[in-house]
Amino acid sequence: MKHRDLGTSACPIDRSLYEVGDTWTLQILRDAMHGITRFTDFSNHIGLATNVLTARLQKLVSVGMFEVHESALGNSRDYVLTEKGRDFHTVLAALRQWGQKHLFEDDEPVNRVIDARTGRQPLPLRLTAEDGRELTPDDILIVQSRAADPIEAATPIDTPRRRTA
Amino acid sequence: MKHRDLGTSACPIDRSLYEVGDTWTLQILRDAMHGITRFTDFSNHIGLATNVLTARLQKLVSVGMFEVHESALGNSRDYVLTEKGRDFHTVLAALRQWGQKHLFEDDEPVNRVIDARTGRQPLPLRLTAEDGRELTPDDILIVQSRAADPIEAATPIDTPRRRTA
Repeated sequence: MKHRDLGTSACPIDRSLYEVGDTWTLQILRDAMHGITRFTDFSNHIGLATNVLTARLQKLVSVGMFEVHESALGNSRDYVLTEKGRDFHTVLAALRQWGQKHLFEDDEPVNRVIDARTGRQPLPLRLTAEDGRELTPDDILIVQSRAADPIEAATPIDTPRRRTA
Repeated sequence: MKHRDLGTSACPIDRSLYEVGDTWTLQILRDAMHGITRFTDFSNHIGLATNVLTARLQKLVSVGMFEVHESALGNSRDYVLTEKGRDFHTVLAALRQWGQKHLFEDDEPVNRVIDARTGRQPLPLRLTAEDGRELTPDDILIVQSRAADPIEAATPIDTPRRRTA
């Protein structure tokens, strides 16, 4: 599959990667969730070349994850997350959770998220069934349907897991 | 921040991106969750150049997300997810959920996940507090502590959101 074909794939992961599938874009979104809105603040924090940061911000505006808010005098621009952009925080939370669990030694400093109201950590993100069972990769199947159709109308996609199940 | 510095950042998202932060690696992991283990199957499904796929698989082995299982005769190799690798499925589930919600028109075919036992969709992934409140980007703060320390020992990290809160 060529990179440009990702944007029309039936797999939502492919399509997501087409919009946001690079390290810098994900770092920009992470910082935006923490309240950064200005070019210079993204630049200082992520340490990106100006042309790269410009391209990534433009892409995020063009796909509707950022809106540009210009000041009345036209001397400042803020890149503000849209609803679609803000909704991406669940992905970043999952990435943070995985990294925190698997990529740190006990004596290393680690940035963690707390609930601002209670100072406690959020509950772990887990994929669960309607009855509360945790779903592992072995417990799920991939099916295909029109996006608007109910799940009952979906047909199975052939995967190696399904063939051996 | 230079790319190589991501691997020693205090931010778990940076470290995660250092290990898996490219489109191809994420596609490989997605396919592995569906039961693909062979080089030729990854190659056929993702359509990657051989040298690129080789490098990505080697990286995933070196960071402990895949183990290589060789057949007794040495004529086949399977790339099998480790526990660390399998645990990444929550990230892919979050990416899938976001893409499914924001990147498809009603009449487009979309690949969806179902619970193999019931045929129903999993519950939506949401970041929630201990008391069940949904946590948005506005409801969380970033703090830093040693990885082994309790959250009570953490100190706040200065972010724009915190400065304006």
